[in-house]
Amino acid sequence: MANSQTGDSVIDRLVRVLATFDSEHTEQSPSDIARRAGLPLSTGHRLVGDLVESGLLERDEDGQARVGMRLWELATRGSLALGLRQAALPAMERVQALVRQHTQLGVADGDQVLFLERLSHPQAGANITRIAGRLPLHASSSGLVLLAAAPPAVLERILAAPLERLAPETITDPAALRRKLAEVRRLGHAIAPGSIEAVSTGIAVPLRDRGVVVAALGVVLPRGEEDDRVATILRAAAGEIEAALAAPSRSSTILVTFKS
Amino acid sequence: MANSQTGDSVIDRLVRVLATFDSEHTEQSPSDIARRAGLPLSTGHRLVGDLVESGLLERDEDGQARVGMRLWELATRGSLALGLRQAALPAMERVQALVRQHTQLGVADGDQVLFLERLSHPQAGANITRIAGRLPLHASSSGLVLLAAAPPAVLERILAAPLERLAPETITDPAALRRKLAEVRRLGHAIAPGSIEAVSTGIAVPLRDRGVVVAALGVVLPRGEEDDRVATILRAAAGEIEAALAAPSRSSTILVTFKS
Repeated sequence: MANSQTGDSVIDRLVRVLATFDSEHTEQSPSDIARRAGLPLSTGHRLVGDLVESGLLERDEDGQARVGMRLWELATRGSLALGLRQAALPAMERVQALVRQHTQLGVADGDQVLFLERLSHPQAGANITRIAGRLPLHASSSGLVLLAAAPPAVLERILAAPLERLAPETITDPAALRRKLAEVRRLGHAIAPGSIEAVSTGIAVPLRDRGVVVAALGVVLPRGEEDDRVATILRAAAGEIEAALAAPSRSSTILVTFKS
Repeated sequence: MANSQTGDSVIDRLVRVLATFDSEHTEQSPSDIARRAGLPLSTGHRLVGDLVESGLLERDEDGQARVGMRLWELATRGSLALGLRQAALPAMERVQALVRQHTQLGVADGDQVLFLERLSHPQAGANITRIAGRLPLHASSSGLVLLAAAPPAVLERILAAPLERLAPETITDPAALRRKLAEVRRLGHAIAPGSIEAVSTGIAVPLRDRGVVVAALGVVLPRGEEDDRVATILRAAAGEIEAALAAPSRSSTILVTFKS
């Protein structure tokens, strides 16, 4: 692995370049990419050129670079995220047809929940979640469900660190978070009113693969439109998804990747 | 960019490693990865180690490597494929609710159609298509729709090369393919019975963004269950998707990436 003068490898620099792309930055000039990746301009231009040549990035007629279809293909076709999402999608569609707001699927990755899928009604209320977006584990209903099933060491580390406040009702007190997680375990679902945005409430249930919680299935509703039936609907959907995950044709289990 | 003794760059080797993963190979040992990537064992092991460290690959407790959630996240969150898929999904679900077989979305990438999404009924018939899988442009109904709108130079290059036969009814004669493409343009949809698998028929329509064909929306039906209403259903769905793509909030157009 070749290292630059500052000791970072080509792989590190590649990750920094790719990390400059998100839903707000789908097309960028090589100079903007270099600046946002914290790379010298010449290094950034050269790396973008190499990535375009390999197809991992694409360049349009104006010289703007975008994530290549080839990169998406390589990252998707063998991904266990795809298998989980495919197993979950039919049940998610049924939830969405009943709830008509937002239905989403998330997994723990590091100290965040990473969202693999989101179905939204065109007239649905506010929801900050993005596909391939992240939220802190302690704040979102999906995160609370995953955190409630996390190994004790992971939980204690998160409780010991500052708990970021995303909205007025985010739980930031460790003792209160501990009580909330006990409630999640007791109820079998998490309800998080106003903890991400004041105007919405998240409700989520765990998804298990061979007994281990591997993901969270949740909905986001406008504040004041919470409905007791939602948790029941989610639990029924989780049962369907767990049956799909348990099918004998599926040999791969989902890897739970908490940062340890 | 550091080059190895054989002149390939780190990026080239990275692509070769990632290309060993697909739906049949979601978890692989570093040695298998090196062998399938055509890399010396020590190079393969070192590169897999670097990729695991960066999160682009993950390693399970048995030392098997898999595509990392981080790679999927980086490849997805800024991808125009995601925007197209999101614009198309609600209409695809409506098609799927009517057709109850397979509904899929593909784009041209190189000389293939790359499938971004597929919805399938649990009891649906045969369909070789995979999400993030590819089929030759001349063989699938989605590919025929994209090829019918390709620049003349691209079309002539494809007509001049051998046309691979995937099934007994794949069109492999250049003159017959030219006639078929004229039919696609005249009808506004492609119907491809038995050209991918003898037991199924693909039907597809083009999706336009600002007047340019950027994708194909198609269904796969069991042979003998073709229905004249399917093209009409697909055309109505294409209209909905095109309206979503034309929404003023969308500034990015989809890049059409035929190999030129």
